[in-house]
This record gives sequence, C-alpha cells and structure tokens, in this order.
Amino acid sequence: MLEELKEAVFKANLELPERGLIKYTWGNVSAFDPQSGYFVIKPSGVDYDTMTADDMVVVDLNNNIIEGSLKPSSDTPTHAVLYKNFPEIRSIVHTHSPWATIWAQAGQDVPAMGTTHADTFYGTVPCARFLTTEEAQNAYEHNTGELIVNTFKERGIDPQAIPAVLLHGHGPFTWGKSPEAAVMNSVVLEEVCKMNFYTRQLNVFAEPLPQAILDVHYLRKHGKNAYYGQSNK
Amino acid sequence: MLEELKEAVFKANLELPERGLIKYTWGNVSAFDPQSGYFVIKPSGVDYDTMTADDMVVVDLNNNIIEGSLKPSSDTPTHAVLYKNFPEIRSIVHTHSPWATIWAQAGQDVPAMGTTHADTFYGTVPCARFLTTEEAQNAYEHNTGELIVNTFKERGIDPQAIPAVLLHGHGPFTWGKSPEAAVMNSVVLEEVCKMNFYTRQLNVFAEPLPQAILDVHYLRKHGKNAYYGQSNK
Amino acid sequence: MLEELKEAVFKANLELPERGLIKYTWGNVSAFDPQSGYFVIKPSGVDYDTMTADDMVVVDLNNNIIEGSLKPSSDTPTHAVLYKNFPEIRSIVHTHSPWATIWAQAGQDVPAMGTTHADTFYGTVPCARFLTTEEAQNAYEHNTGELIVNTFKERGIDPQAIPAVLLHGHGPFTWGKSPEAAVMNSVVLEEVCKMNFYTRQLNVFAEPLPQAILDVHYLRKHGKNAYYGQSNK
Amino acid sequence: MLEELKEAVFKANLELPERGLIKYTWGNVSAFDPQSGYFVIKPSGVDYDTMTADDMVVVDLNNNIIEGSLKPSSDTPTHAVLYKNFPEIRSIVHTHSPWATIWAQAGQDVPAMGTTHADTFYGTVPCARFLTTEEAQNAYEHNTGELIVNTFKERGIDPQAIPAVLLHGHGPFTWGKSPEAAVMNSVVLEEVCKMNFYTRQLNVFAEPLPQAILDVHYLRKHGKNAYYGQSNK
Repeated sequence: MLEELKEAVFKANLELPERGLIKYTWGNVSAFDPQSGYFVIKPSGVDYDTMTADDMVVVDLNNNIIEGSLKPSSDTPTHAVLYKNFPEIRSIVHTHSPWATIWAQAGQDVPAMGTTHADTFYGTVPCARFLTTEEAQNAYEHNTGELIVNTFKERGIDPQAIPAVLLHGHGPFTWGKSPEAAVMNSVVLEEVCKMNFYTRQLNVFAEPLPQAILDVHYLRKHGKNAYYGQSNK
Repeated sequence: MLEELKEAVFKANLELPERGLIKYTWGNVSAFDPQSGYFVIKPSGVDYDTMTADDMVVVDLNNNIIEGSLKPSSDTPTHAVLYKNFPEIRSIVHTHSPWATIWAQAGQDVPAMGTTHADTFYGTVPCARFLTTEEAQNAYEHNTGELIVNTFKERGIDPQAIPAVLLHGHGPFTWGKSPEAAVMNSVVLEEVCKMNFYTRQLNVFAEPLPQAILDVHYLRKHGKNAYYGQSNK
Repeated sequence: MLEELKEAVFKANLELPERGLIKYTWGNVSAFDPQSGYFVIKPSGVDYDTMTADDMVVVDLNNNIIEGSLKPSSDTPTHAVLYKNFPEIRSIVHTHSPWATIWAQAGQDVPAMGTTHADTFYGTVPCARFLTTEEAQNAYEHNTGELIVNTFKERGIDPQAIPAVLLHGHGPFTWGKSPEAAVMNSVVLEEVCKMNFYTRQLNVFAEPLPQAILDVHYLRKHGKNAYYGQSNK
Repeated sequence: MLEELKEAVFKANLELPERGLIKYTWGNVSAFDPQSGYFVIKPSGVDYDTMTADDMVVVDLNNNIIEGSLKPSSDTPTHAVLYKNFPEIRSIVHTHSPWATIWAQAGQDVPAMGTTHADTFYGTVPCARFLTTEEAQNAYEHNTGELIVNTFKERGIDPQAIPAVLLHGHGPFTWGKSPEAAVMNSVVLEEVCKMNFYTRQLNVFAEPLPQAILDVHYLRKHGKNAYYGQSNK
C-alpha cells in the first residue's frame, strides 16, 4: 500500500542526517495521500542505519495505524492535525536542526533579512508560544498541531506562503508539496536562522529586506509569472 | 576475558572522533562488568588508527590492571570512583568536545532550554567546581571522581536522571546503561551546550523550558509509561 | 561552441557546493569569451547531480541565448552588465555563501583585518546599497549589475584590485581571470567575512591591517615584482 | 637528499587541509635536519592535489636552495630565523587556520582557560605586535622571524614550553619535535582559540585555569615524571 510514497518518505528521512539537520533519530518526515486520506510516516526511534522503506507506517487522520508492524513516530498526532487543517500541503518535516531550534528556544519569529529567505518564505516565519501546562499534560502532540494551526489563523498567515513554524522551546516544522520540497524548506529555514542571527550580531541596526526586493525574489520563483528554473521556460 | 565488552568499548571509542566529539586521543570510554566487578577502558594515548579491541585494558575498581599489555587511560581512577558510587551505570565517556568544554571552562551549569535537552536530561546538568590545589596535586584523577560524586550528593541530583557532569576548566563526563548510550549522552550534551549558548545570545531574556514540557518529553522516553521508540509498543 | 569554456564553467559550478559556498542551486558561475563576445553560464535551477557541461548556456551581452536548450540563470543580466563594464574580467561567481551573505544582510563593507584578506583583496570590499523599489520592480537583475558598476565608479575602486562586492540584503559576487580564480575569490571572501566578524567580537578595538603589511602581502602575490608561487621564479 | 624528511614534511603539509587548518595553499610545514644544518620546506603556491614529496625544497639557514627545482615557500626566511634561534625545535608549521587567525587579527594573547590548553601549552600563547612599516618593507619574512624570537626573549617565554605564537594581523606559527607534533600543536592552538573565545562570550568573568591544574595536566604529559601515554609505562 502506497509503496511509492513510502519510498519517498523513507528517502526524505535519510536526507535529514545527510543535510546536517538531525543526529540519531531526532526528526521525522511524513507524506499525505489525498486519494486515500492516509499519510505515511517514519516509525518511532528506529535507527536510520537499519531502517527500510517497508518500515514506514501508514496511518489515517485520526492516528489509527492502517498498515505497518512498527509504532509510528510519537509526533504523528501533530502531523495529522496539520494535514486536516492545511489541505494543500502534501508533506511535513520535523527536526531539531540546531539554528532553527536556537530561534525556537529563544521564542523569536524569524524576520526576512535577505533574498535567501525571500526565495522560499514570503515574510516572517512565526514562533508559536509555549504549550500551557494543560496542553502539555493531555494529548501533547495533538495540541502541538492545534497550536500551530491557531498561530497561523490568529496571525493571518497563509501556510503555503510561509511553509514553516517554530515551536517555543522545541524546534521547527516545515511542509511542502512533496517530501523533497518539505526537506528543502527545512534546509532554508536552518540557513536563514543561522545567517539572521549573525546579521544582527554584526549590525544591531540591520534592517529587514525591503518589501520590493522580497516581492521580486519570492514571486520570480513562486508567483504567477515565475521565471526561475526550467518548468516555466 | 570480557571480549564482548572490549569490542563494545573499542567501538564506542572510535565513535568519539566520528561524531566530532574529540580530536586525536582526547577522550576515553569505559564499560563496567557487574559480575566480575572489573571494567574495560581505553589504553592511554594510543593512536585511534592503529588501536584494536585487544588493546582495551581490564582493571578493577582499585585501579589494578587485571589484563592488558598497555597502560590504561590516565583518567582511569576517575572512572573507578564513578562506578563505585553510581552503581546503576554501566559505561562512562570522557571527552573534550568543544561546546561542553566551553561551558566547563566558563564554569556554568547547563539549564534545560528545550526539548532536545529534556529528551535526555531531566533538568540542569551541573558544573562541578575547580579542584583545589591540594586535590590537584595529589591523586588528581581520583579526586576528580570524588568531586563529581560529591557534587551530585550535595545538590541532590540523581545520576540516572542527569547522566552528565561538567568539570570547571576541564570538560564533560557522561554515562549510561551501555557504551552506545553513554556516547549518545555526550552527543546530546554537546548539542544542547551549543544551542543554549546561542539561545541566550539571541535573546538574553530567553526562559528555560516550562516544567510541564520538560516532564512530557523526559517521561515519554524514560518514564514508566514511555511511549517513544519500539521497545514499549 | 565554446566547449572548453563550458567544461570550465561546469566544473566551477560543481566546486560551489564542494567548497561549502552553496546548497542546492543557490549560485551560478559564468565565463566570458573575448573573441566571440559571448559568455557561458549555468542554466537556471537545474539539480547539480544531473547537470552536465552540455547544459551550460551561451548568451551574448544583451542576454540573447546563442546556444543551449535550457534557460540561463535568472541572474544572467547581472553578469552581462559586469562583463560590459569591467572589460578585464573573464569569469563571475554569485553565491549565497553564509558569511558573505551575513555581511551583505548587515549592509557592511568588509575591511582588511589581516593578511588572508591582503593576499587577495587590495583593501576594503564594498557593500552596495539596497536596490530602490523602482530598480527592484523593473529589470531587477540588470539593475543589480548597474548598481555594482556604479558603486565601484563612485567609490573609485579598481575591480581588478578588489574582485568582489556585496549586495545589501542579498549576497556576494566575485570575479577573476578564470572560473577557478573567481571561485577562489569567493572562498577567500567567505573566510575573511567569518574571521573579521569574530575578530571584532573578540576585540571591539581591533585595528585594520597597517597599510605597509597590506602592501607587502598584496604585492608579493599580485604586484610587478611578485615572488609568491612558481610562475615568477 | 633527506628523502625521509621530505616524505614527513610532504605528509604533514597534506595534513593541514585534512585537519581543516588551511584552504588552497595557505600554509607551510618545514623540518630541520641537525646533522646537515639544512631544512626541508614546501614549495611556494603549488596545488596540494599535484604536489609530491619530491617537490619539497632543501634550503640552508641562510635561505640558499641546496636542492629542488621549485621555489621554496615565500615564508622560508621566517622558518630559517626560528631554527637558528630555537635550536631544540625540529619542525615548524604556519597556517591561516581561522580561530588562531581571529585571535591574531584581534592582537590578543591566548590565556590558558582549560586543560585542553594545559595538555600542550604551559601557559599563555603570546601574540607578537604588528611589524613596523620599516620591518614590513624590507626583508618582511626575515623580520617576521626576528619579531617572534624577540617576543619570546623579551617576555621570557621558553619556546619548548609554549610551542606557538600569533602574529598580529597575520596568523599562527607552531613548532615541535617532529612535523607530526608541530601539526598537532596547530590543531590544539586552533581548538583552544575557538573554545576560549566562546568561554568569554558565555561568561565574561570566566577565570583562567588555576596554576595547580595547569601544572598537573602539562606535567603529566611533558614533565620528568610524565605518566600519560605508553612511552613511559
């Protein structure tokens, strides 16, 4: 069942340590199949050296295991809430990548300071608040998903234009149209978190990227008249 | 004698440079065999490129060499004191990994700022004081062990819940149920030392992780009702 | 057409990720052929793993595609303006290398703080201002080139003595007598941006390199009586 | 002539990029043969990928080429002055390794903040002043050597106890009893420069290592009654 998607999710999980985003098993990737309404996710705490595509677990949006002999990632309920509420997204990535986690631990939104950011994120990447004691003690992972969704709603952010969030005290989640794209968004987030930190240290008066340059860079890649890459030549 | 343990200790020592925790021979791993009361430890100052599992040295808790043609690590007496006083631990790792060493040189405890910390350490990792001149001049390595034990006693810290310590001006020791686990604890400590440093630099008012989130993350991995990983499915 | 140049440009593009200057397709290298008046440039957004030398695109200085089945880099018009106005240069490199980008985001010139800088750049590397809204909204990439040229003109900088520029909010461009040299200038710029940042953090009163030492180091490699290397023995 | 020494010098030069101390050709290693009074040094500006042991150049202490078809490193006169004045040393390494260069650019001595430092350097590593205009304009490389020697003399530092120096605005030189040892001293210097920088950033009141601990660590490796390693078992 969903063999191709399992293969893609498996490969994307392997990309996490290869790209320096995680150590050990500190991350997970999932992908959603809109036809069946199921998603495929990494099993919990399995060594990446021995993991195979067949170990991927198929679950539904209520966190029921549909197929698979292993337990799915403990963060599965967070993924389920995001797929339910952000219907356009097809893959989700969670990591503890150091720079994004540093911003998450600091509880800071990530402003657009340069074109590296603008090429992927159309504005500030939000940092969601700490979960309350109550939210943490009951259905922690589910409530994490709800908190992300509410953060985007309350702040009027389009999850397609800003495919990433930080969780205060925890780390990043990113998403995209495919596992490959969701992983790339994690890489970009990591890079801009690193660069923005040092930018402010180098010049405390450093200004965010002017709106006109943010527009050009985001839209030349993601707008209607995009002219970056080969797909629109 | 203790061939399997030698192999495990040998492999764990090789992991130290592979995971970026040490350069040259700046670290050592040991493992304790509760049946014989002996422990196996890396020889002193032997090049990792030529070292074999057979070079591992077997010593007793009074630092007598039981088997082995090489001198054991000069830090052997520190390991012995820890095995005597922390009877649940089965392996000890010492490194000069840069970020943990930076915190050690700064003489600072490592607070829990995020879930990466909470997944492994159930609270603040302590930094033991400098050894006194007297402690340094006589039985330095033995006194290092005593200082660690006393730091945990005086501060009422459970060495199983916090399997790591920093020594002021020196570096980290970590431990665990196996050489693999003790090395992983060194990796986690290194990572949280790096991330916590930058967290504070990014936001000097950054708050520690709320207790409820610390509880969820530590306990979902290490508590009675742990649900992370496959062993408790 | 221009097969050798295509091969050199292709290889130089591959060097960008190998030397840690870019991730994914976040950079481009071109090289100019003075006989034909054409230049060879990387195609836009093509995966480095599947790209071949044949994928390189030949364009003229008015951005017309002369040969090639793929779209050239979206930054092509910037390259064209530089070749038109800096007639001595033979290759251009654009990256989002982290440290140079950090200085670009901070909007800061890079002063000569040491001999690593002096060995390549004969003084301060300038940071050009943000593009205005008007410049960004029409012919953004062409205007980027014009801004670089005007920055060098207005500040009286010789592009051969300072083969690099930063663009505020964006990143670096470097150039040289060959693709290999232009890439090396990117590597040097990245390294001095990193080292100069930490130099000032370590000592806020750190002074720039005295002129006499700047002279010796620059001229022993690039002056009339250069004595570094084997070409002048 | 001196084939074994050439091989050792060649290998030590290759170690510089492997250990992250240099990029391209930004470094050089030499070794002294006390019997002949000659030393072997890397040729100037030769690509490490194509360099062979035979390319090493034999020179005397007055910088005359005794054997070799290539020009020796432009820093050769600095090495000659050091061999003349520090008769116990057998090998010299010069790099632009980033952290040591950062301290050199900042013009700062490197204090002993931890045992990683104490295991190799018996106290503060000095930073020599900028060369004067006159010193820079005539016999720059020779004067660099003289400045190092005078810095050690004036400050009463034993070059065997502190086998390293920084040059303001330039970078580090280290030395040792063999090319391997001199390279290791460069690695240690790089590591302590990195760790000491962050130590002070983490805690501006961080204290240097107490003398008694400095003594134990230095002497257990380098003292008369050294007990670290296998050579003294």
